[in-house]
Amino acid sequence: MEQRITLITLGVSDLARAKAFYEALGWRGQEIEETVFFQAGGLGLVLWSREKLARDVGLEPGPAPTSGFGGIALAHNVRSEAEVDALLAAVERAGGTITKPAAVNTVGFYSSAFTDPDGHAWEVAYNPGFPLADDGTVTIPDFGGA
Amino acid sequence: MEQRITLITLGVSDLARAKAFYEALGWRGQEIEETVFFQAGGLGLVLWSREKLARDVGLEPGPAPTSGFGGIALAHNVRSEAEVDALLAAVERAGGTITKPAAVNTVGFYSSAFTDPDGHAWEVAYNPGFPLADDGTVTIPDFGGA
Repeated sequence: MEQRITLITLGVSDLARAKAFYEALGWRGQEIEETVFFQAGGLGLVLWSREKLARDVGLEPGPAPTSGFGGIALAHNVRSEAEVDALLAAVERAGGTITKPAAVNTVGFYSSAFTDPDGHAWEVAYNPGFPLADDGTVTIPDFGGA
Repeated sequence: MEQRITLITLGVSDLARAKAFYEALGWRGQEIEETVFFQAGGLGLVLWSREKLARDVGLEPGPAPTSGFGGIALAHNVRSEAEVDALLAAVERAGGTITKPAAVNTVGFYSSAFTDPDGHAWEVAYNPGFPLADDGTVTIPDFGGA
């Protein structure tokens, strides 16, 4: 198995609402057959019915969490503390929920978090220890360990 | 907000077990401070305590699902049906759970799914409609719509 991911699909309960949220943050994608595809670097971020997505991977959808943690968090690192603050302001205007106000965390970098309208968690951080390339990709630094 | 993702962090209940699973599938990463970082194309796939991850994004961890759907699925597309079958066999040997046996789906491509030891869902597919570049990145095709 090559070390790569082709798609990340977020299960949503209201596609129009989810699409509008990401569009309000500046994302642009394509909608086809009740699915929204966003190009996100070398992979696709996809919005699709939570129930259909669950069944497509052979699982029972179960109840959609109104709050709480689904088990996965996405991180969006930016290039300055000011960019963190600006993105959080945009998230609030777009109807997201700030779940962790921006502050320097215990590891020493400026970090915050929000959830989208379906409760999917995003960290937003400025972490100079994980430098971003010009194209936004990140290379995990060599920690010098095993 | 640029259309990109820096990290995908999977909350896990047993880091050693989760790390061993992905290593058995061929992934190689670095472990530091009870966290495993894998380079996955232009982003990082991270394994970290489910409870710590939840609190880090300002959410309550809640009960870890023993089965069921967390709301997000990752997809790993490959270049042939035989590659799908080979990966599923490796998943079974590594202790993953096949949740959808490989078959041509209703959309017309060869697709399957599994869950890792923490229940995180992966689709494994050969979809000629989403061609992979040599470096494994995918470009969402132009669907010709809005």
